[in-house]
Amino acid sequence: MTVRVGVIGAGNIGTSHARDLAHRVAGSAVSVIYDFDQARAAELAEELGARPAVSYEELIAAVDVDAVVIASPDQFHAEQALACLAAGKPTLCEKPLAPVESDARAVLDAEVALGRRLIMMGFMRRFDPGYRELKDTFGPDGIGDPLIVRNSHRNEVAPYGLDSALSITNAAIHEIDITRWLVDDEYEWVEVVPGRSGPITPEGQRDPLFLLLRTRTGVIVDIEMFVQSQIGYEVTCHVTGGLGNASMADGRYVTIAKARQQGHDLPELWLGRFQDAYRLQLQGWVTYLVAGGPMPGASTWDGYVGAIVANAAVDSLRTEARVPITLPERPALYA
Amino acid sequence: MTVRVGVIGAGNIGTSHARDLAHRVAGSAVSVIYDFDQARAAELAEELGARPAVSYEELIAAVDVDAVVIASPDQFHAEQALACLAAGKPTLCEKPLAPVESDARAVLDAEVALGRRLIMMGFMRRFDPGYRELKDTFGPDGIGDPLIVRNSHRNEVAPYGLDSALSITNAAIHEIDITRWLVDDEYEWVEVVPGRSGPITPEGQRDPLFLLLRTRTGVIVDIEMFVQSQIGYEVTCHVTGGLGNASMADGRYVTIAKARQQGHDLPELWLGRFQDAYRLQLQGWVTYLVAGGPMPGASTWDGYVGAIVANAAVDSLRTEARVPITLPERPALYA
Amino acid sequence: MTVRVGVIGAGNIGTSHARDLAHRVAGSAVSVIYDFDQARAAELAEELGARPAVSYEELIAAVDVDAVVIASPDQFHAEQALACLAAGKPTLCEKPLAPVESDARAVLDAEVALGRRLIMMGFMRRFDPGYRELKDTFGPDGIGDPLIVRNSHRNEVAPYGLDSALSITNAAIHEIDITRWLVDDEYEWVEVVPGRSGPITPEGQRDPLFLLLRTRTGVIVDIEMFVQSQIGYEVTCHVTGGLGNASMADGRYVTIAKARQQGHDLPELWLGRFQDAYRLQLQGWVTYLVAGGPMPGASTWDGYVGAIVANAAVDSLRTEARVPITLPERPALYA
Amino acid sequence: MTVRVGVIGAGNIGTSHARDLAHRVAGSAVSVIYDFDQARAAELAEELGARPAVSYEELIAAVDVDAVVIASPDQFHAEQALACLAAGKPTLCEKPLAPVESDARAVLDAEVALGRRLIMMGFMRRFDPGYRELKDTFGPDGIGDPLIVRNSHRNEVAPYGLDSALSITNAAIHEIDITRWLVDDEYEWVEVVPGRSGPITPEGQRDPLFLLLRTRTGVIVDIEMFVQSQIGYEVTCHVTGGLGNASMADGRYVTIAKARQQGHDLPELWLGRFQDAYRLQLQGWVTYLVAGGPMPGASTWDGYVGAIVANAAVDSLRTEARVPITLPERPALYA
Repeated sequence: MTVRVGVIGAGNIGTSHARDLAHRVAGSAVSVIYDFDQARAAELAEELGARPAVSYEELIAAVDVDAVVIASPDQFHAEQALACLAAGKPTLCEKPLAPVESDARAVLDAEVALGRRLIMMGFMRRFDPGYRELKDTFGPDGIGDPLIVRNSHRNEVAPYGLDSALSITNAAIHEIDITRWLVDDEYEWVEVVPGRSGPITPEGQRDPLFLLLRTRTGVIVDIEMFVQSQIGYEVTCHVTGGLGNASMADGRYVTIAKARQQGHDLPELWLGRFQDAYRLQLQGWVTYLVAGGPMPGASTWDGYVGAIVANAAVDSLRTEARVPITLPERPALYA
Repeated sequence: MTVRVGVIGAGNIGTSHARDLAHRVAGSAVSVIYDFDQARAAELAEELGARPAVSYEELIAAVDVDAVVIASPDQFHAEQALACLAAGKPTLCEKPLAPVESDARAVLDAEVALGRRLIMMGFMRRFDPGYRELKDTFGPDGIGDPLIVRNSHRNEVAPYGLDSALSITNAAIHEIDITRWLVDDEYEWVEVVPGRSGPITPEGQRDPLFLLLRTRTGVIVDIEMFVQSQIGYEVTCHVTGGLGNASMADGRYVTIAKARQQGHDLPELWLGRFQDAYRLQLQGWVTYLVAGGPMPGASTWDGYVGAIVANAAVDSLRTEARVPITLPERPALYA
Repeated sequence: MTVRVGVIGAGNIGTSHARDLAHRVAGSAVSVIYDFDQARAAELAEELGARPAVSYEELIAAVDVDAVVIASPDQFHAEQALACLAAGKPTLCEKPLAPVESDARAVLDAEVALGRRLIMMGFMRRFDPGYRELKDTFGPDGIGDPLIVRNSHRNEVAPYGLDSALSITNAAIHEIDITRWLVDDEYEWVEVVPGRSGPITPEGQRDPLFLLLRTRTGVIVDIEMFVQSQIGYEVTCHVTGGLGNASMADGRYVTIAKARQQGHDLPELWLGRFQDAYRLQLQGWVTYLVAGGPMPGASTWDGYVGAIVANAAVDSLRTEARVPITLPERPALYA
Repeated sequence: MTVRVGVIGAGNIGTSHARDLAHRVAGSAVSVIYDFDQARAAELAEELGARPAVSYEELIAAVDVDAVVIASPDQFHAEQALACLAAGKPTLCEKPLAPVESDARAVLDAEVALGRRLIMMGFMRRFDPGYRELKDTFGPDGIGDPLIVRNSHRNEVAPYGLDSALSITNAAIHEIDITRWLVDDEYEWVEVVPGRSGPITPEGQRDPLFLLLRTRTGVIVDIEMFVQSQIGYEVTCHVTGGLGNASMADGRYVTIAKARQQGHDLPELWLGRFQDAYRLQLQGWVTYLVAGGPMPGASTWDGYVGAIVANAAVDSLRTEARVPITLPERPALYA
């Protein structure tokens, strides 16, 4: 059985997803593509033997679309996810679920009302070999229980102009989610500690940001988020456990010595680090759609919690105070 | 279009191939499985929704087998490859093409007589991200042209009892092939330098082996082959180029500090290092079968050259002398 | 000219200093040794061709003592430093200057009253090749100005029973000092963030501790202090600057692969990491005593500031609140 | 007791030795300096509070010279060493003992005739923390007995024009010596394998060189010597033992990420790698002169063997054939 996927959004990440589904994932094909830029949709559709749709509604309704990938701009995620729920189609939705918490809540409520889980959130780091290897070090044969988690997330330049709030809701949200997944615990509070900014940070913005969080069981988490680091793309995660510690860096095979330097390149963009995570996420999703079993990735609940925590962090950024995280009860659907 | 693959051999590597084709490769399905052990074939067939065959001939002839993977014991590769050629079916044949040079030659001659290339050799390291990254460092923007290549290949224990000749024809043949591919050059001579053996090397055997080779353009190549190293599985490759040098090691993401040790595990077996290379090889092969274009992996010619060089190395091991490598002219089919 | 040094304290660190002065430092000799345990002093004195003293006062007063090293238990540092000031003898005083802030203040006041700097504080990390290399990366040709500094400091076991306050005043004080030296700035506040403890942390104690500090110019500093980490001794420091980032780890030359592990040992104790820093500190001090010039190490002011910050951190540990750091004006003597 | 040292040669390495003896070595002082360039000798003497001599003979004969360091150009080492022997003065002689084997033999014979060991050869790598750490991994608790040793030695540019023979006798002689020391065994044969040269190798020269050697007990040793590598200065050594393997690289503390590169600098020159080895060698020598005990460094015998092996390698370079190493019986003086 082949899962016929409709892809909403033919930008960088939508194109990456579509090509993976067509060429690198077992059991899937791309049938329909929609993009606000119809020429772009048509071009990608032709490349992959799919057809373009003139609206996302048409795509979702199409009989040859078994499942949907949402890779549109952040502000459209929620409404398109609601449409997928209404159509009863399994969906892989790029993060964030919504920049605004109430929009995220609406999707959660709709799925809970539906009574079955159709949406998987595209927190692809949960499929990354590096983070998986890191999580595998936890436990009595490894580093023990996690006590402290320290993250770094650096971009070379801010893609669309720097906005400190956006660097939390769009970028640091990856660390917010992956650390929840690593330690399997909810956050209790978050605090954005004001510091010095880098040399090209625009007036009125803060970059890097330093986020401090604590989970309910007392795990201390920090996140250095630096979107204009100028160094390329770099993500690290260090976990101190009760019996040892583990550090995740790039998984590079080759070291070069040349011109009085020894080391390796950093990628320019996040795809240079997480391409395999995206493929593995899609493969996990497609296999789950075909074979059933527990959903292998993040849920709508995870997406909603991410929105709450990110918004609390944005509040802390504004108020320079610690902000408690209050979650509603987790619906039984996500037990 | 889905390529329906028949898999000959349901041992470790055949099972790995079959599962990849079924679950992790776009565009393929496993239709038929044969193994000398019929129960094993039946079990794997059931797992993957395929059916077992009672002979490899039946498998090759089956109408629902578009292409064949040969993953049987080394000594059967040549005769099965010949049968695939006779049936006109595309084949991915595990290395070596044959332990005996004349058998390898017979397959080469048959393919040349057929006039089209049906066989791709399973030298999967050509698809390994590590070796690809290494090769990408060559050239004027990187380390320049390769001048010296130094390889290490270590197994924890010899799988079926140690036989020094076998550790060349079955194991070091990987380095013989991958270095040819890296430097794109043919060998001129090979010399196995006798040395000291390790503490558990049986009487009458030599392990580690140290192979020294030179290519026609003067690239110096060495291979340390240590099949009873006791350390786990480890493969390294270092290339000195005219402008710099590059070292390939394991591509690990995570470093652990625990119990006064800092570092990471070594895998027990080669699959722990090359699982992704196997998947990428199968994906490359299936995509090539569907979409055409140049064959992405090693050819029958490469398999034949590997057999010649490995046999010359075995001669050198016996005679303790340098052995020249004489190749027939490369058939136009492999230009 | 040879500087004849009297060493107070013949424990681990006093013995290390005395042997360095006798055997590995140019321009010095050990003339007199005092220890509360007279037999121990006599034994070390004999080994090094020195003589034992029956009191530290005798040692300080001796005509063949040109300079003094204080390596006694922490609580005696201040009174012995005062005695050295009274005698007008140059002194290298082990950290901390005093566990109690008022004692540290008394030494500072006495030195200011004297009007010349006689005391160098034994913050030996300022001489460590690793931290020096790290500091050398700062600036426009390197990583730019430091914005965030993240430290880890791990012991295998707490030497004398775990006391969370002591793990700040005796251990984390190293990070408090070295980060001040790295970023050349004073702290504005400190906060000890309560978290989970490790599996062998005694009831009523906290370990690891997570300290967060900010400097006056907004550099964010954190310190993970884990005195019962069980892993051996490990110190790391990571600095994010405006143009890049730099990570300091152990400076090991050799990587071992054995028994399915690849990496290197961690030392059991701090001397395994900082032996060279101690020697370089003593050499720097002796050279300064002979040749003059600016004092190459930490001053009494640095020792006093360390005591203030450490005590503020202990307050924060007790109160679970952020504690501002208020410093008196820096005396002109330390400009 | 202070050892008053006369230093012959005030070039790079002589100046480094003199400054170490004056400022970084316990128990020594520099009393007299000679250099062919008298102004240079006078300048360094003034810097260090020593006096210049007008000839090396004057220096050796001086009553305030207890011991001599020979750091003159290679071709003068033998005659100056003979003069030191004649004067009965302990000597640290830079490598090589002599470029010409018969000159080296003359010094050996003279020392044997004298009946006591006065000369220590400046093979400083024996004191390098990296090589010491590497050797410490040998044995049953570590990597077992060494079976294969693979060395790389790369300079950025050839200091005085490239001469392939000189790159053996002056540069690769370091690997020839240090590997003998590591494995504690004599070489049986040497073979220089001709290969491709780098892009800036002058016509008629070969660079890199690939040397292959085997010891009497069968340890296989290779040396990549690349004097015009253009990459900076880099030395590596990898040892495969019967139970594991160990790799020695630079002992760097700090990794930098900047401008899409992660790694560290390579030094321009060998002093950037071996400065500490030089200091430790001088300290070991001075301590030995004061306190007695076994000579801690390489002997005249080691220097002589180095000359024999290097000359055999030069022969092999010319003849392109394997050259056996024949040593005279080791004199009892060096047992």
